[in-house]
Amino acid sequence: MPIFSKPLRVHFSPDKKLHQSLRNILGFYPGNIALYKSAFRHSSAASHIKDGVKDSNERLEFLGDSVIGTVVADYLFKKFPFKDEGFLTKMRSKMVSRNQHNTIANKLGLNNFIERDTDRRGMPSSINGDAYEALIGAIYLDKGFDFAQQFLLTRIINVHIDMEEVETKEVDFKSKFIEWAQKEKKDWTFETAVDGNAAADKLFTIQLIVEEKVMGSAQHFSKKRAEQMAAEAACVLIGI
Amino acid sequence: MPIFSKPLRVHFSPDKKLHQSLRNILGFYPGNIALYKSAFRHSSAASHIKDGVKDSNERLEFLGDSVIGTVVADYLFKKFPFKDEGFLTKMRSKMVSRNQHNTIANKLGLNNFIERDTDRRGMPSSINGDAYEALIGAIYLDKGFDFAQQFLLTRIINVHIDMEEVETKEVDFKSKFIEWAQKEKKDWTFETAVDGNAAADKLFTIQLIVEEKVMGSAQHFSKKRAEQMAAEAACVLIGI
Repeated sequence: MPIFSKPLRVHFSPDKKLHQSLRNILGFYPGNIALYKSAFRHSSAASHIKDGVKDSNERLEFLGDSVIGTVVADYLFKKFPFKDEGFLTKMRSKMVSRNQHNTIANKLGLNNFIERDTDRRGMPSSINGDAYEALIGAIYLDKGFDFAQQFLLTRIINVHIDMEEVETKEVDFKSKFIEWAQKEKKDWTFETAVDGNAAADKLFTIQLIVEEKVMGSAQHFSKKRAEQMAAEAACVLIGI
Repeated sequence: MPIFSKPLRVHFSPDKKLHQSLRNILGFYPGNIALYKSAFRHSSAASHIKDGVKDSNERLEFLGDSVIGTVVADYLFKKFPFKDEGFLTKMRSKMVSRNQHNTIANKLGLNNFIERDTDRRGMPSSINGDAYEALIGAIYLDKGFDFAQQFLLTRIINVHIDMEEVETKEVDFKSKFIEWAQKEKKDWTFETAVDGNAAADKLFTIQLIVEEKVMGSAQHFSKKRAEQMAAEAACVLIGI
């Protein structure tokens, strides 16, 4: 049976509309609709089920994140037969970055599906990327690895990821560092010293201070570039 | 056809012996034997093929590591339906640690298969764990995800991993830190100050110094414990 035909159960489902909307963005009818509902449930809208665990999308996000990583690893392994594992690792980390996932989620319009506490303000933008990861976890559980892989290849990677751009894009170490610091709840600051008076030959010395320790420092005539270099040094030290 | 029957091609293969040995430890006959040969080829025994890339097992290791991560994520997701993603993440990192992979490789006897430069001394013990990861990458490419998953569940996780031990085991932060420092080629040292004279009330103050920066410090009456605590602080700072 082709996956795009409408199964009988959809006609009688109380979630008929959700089935139809998901069919439109995913290209197939979900089997177990409960999985997809979980995938779109942010923790702010979740209820406790047992032992302090909520029926939010965080467990599915854990699973989906891993599935995406494996599908991308396989894709890169086959696309670049003459590149070493250092290259593959770097490419993957760019393809599965938080930014990339947020962008994909926005292109798919997942924000229309997300269930969350609308009274709370200032939700992080990563809520969309997290839902995307959880959605892949749901597809994997619902339809299996091969199906999830086909979905990722034909509906995401080939359509929404520009591989040339990924290959040439420099890693934005400042964003990477800030993301880490937010996750780890670290205080940090860039401290700047300026040498030289004429605008033309001002040399910026930047120190990146994390919890009172210097984690990286760099000098450059461009302040932006010096920050990137200091952040890169910190990322290397941290090992991210 | 049951997977344990001997395919005709094996009779005529120049690698008949390897086929047979792999059958004995894996429980199935390999399809594409070249993949398994790559999986066991350490970079010290590899030759250059193109653009500085070698035919070593490092690319397969990259792939296999990811497949193992996903299979373990799925396993934990289903085994612990009422645990949150923090628990799942912690359990997985213990199940896929370098130590765990070395142990599994040794139990499977993979060292008998590894091809390496025998003139070189002092190979790291991780060479076995790396070959194990590469082997899973080879199985995945040879037989697909579902087969690799079945293999991991029935022949590795259910047989070689004691889940109760994993669940109760404390993370050894000192080993974790040292592993990171070796990988990142960082100089480090524990610096000790001792307060008190009588053996009974000696309080050890330990600082973990990495490249001249204090990355963690702790006080305890047990020197070992203080080192663990200082290493834990460093691991948190590093974000590993």
